[in-house]
Amino acid sequence: MKIEKKNLKEKFSLINDYWNPRIAGEINDSHVKLAKVKGEFDWHHHVNEDELFLVNKGTLLMRLKEGDIEINEGEFIVIPKGVEHKPVAEKEVHILLIEPKSTLNTGNVKNEKTITRPEWI
Amino acid sequence: MKIEKKNLKEKFSLINDYWNPRIAGEINDSHVKLAKVKGEFDWHHHVNEDELFLVNKGTLLMRLKEGDIEINEGEFIVIPKGVEHKPVAEKEVHILLIEPKSTLNTGNVKNEKTITRPEWI
Repeated sequence: MKIEKKNLKEKFSLINDYWNPRIAGEINDSHVKLAKVKGEFDWHHHVNEDELFLVNKGTLLMRLKEGDIEINEGEFIVIPKGVEHKPVAEKEVHILLIEPKSTLNTGNVKNEKTITRPEWI
Repeated sequence: MKIEKKNLKEKFSLINDYWNPRIAGEINDSHVKLAKVKGEFDWHHHVNEDELFLVNKGTLLMRLKEGDIEINEGEFIVIPKGVEHKPVAEKEVHILLIEPKSTLNTGNVKNEKTITRPEWI
């Protein structure tokens, strides 16, 4: 595969829906994913996968059982495997995710928000 | 370990040297590293590890045998395992790296630039 750089703004501009992470790159066994989010996601955890959220635009509220954490532009958080979390975005937020390729967006929960085969962008 | 967010600007402000990646987080078998770079690094490759470079400030020139790629703020590139590369920064550049914990900064080359035990920041 040809080596190419990816421009985050350009890739985000191609996304027209929420909570539908697109694959923008792969590093070893992990994917780099990009998503626009707005509103409340469901509480869930990932049994085997840590998950990194880097906020590219806006403010993401990460609800955790131990307390909520507000993640602003230029900040990241790693949610370790097994930890219940619920991402909430009052306004539109652009996030970059790093997580193993095996990661389901809804983790241990399967419902209408579950994306089983994320697309490349 | 307590779950904490990390602010990139704040972490970069603590770095006062070049080409010395600090660990800012871990995701599964990978580290999130932050580095300030300036000048030319050596040609090298990583036998087993893909490596992501996300430019947070400045412009990084990634020299590759197949041609050079200029990576600007808000852009990332993944250098697949085995691919020779030489990062060059005419002016100071702030980069975020994602790479397996096993990754040596100088890859297959060992010299005075090799950092065997990167520190946390």
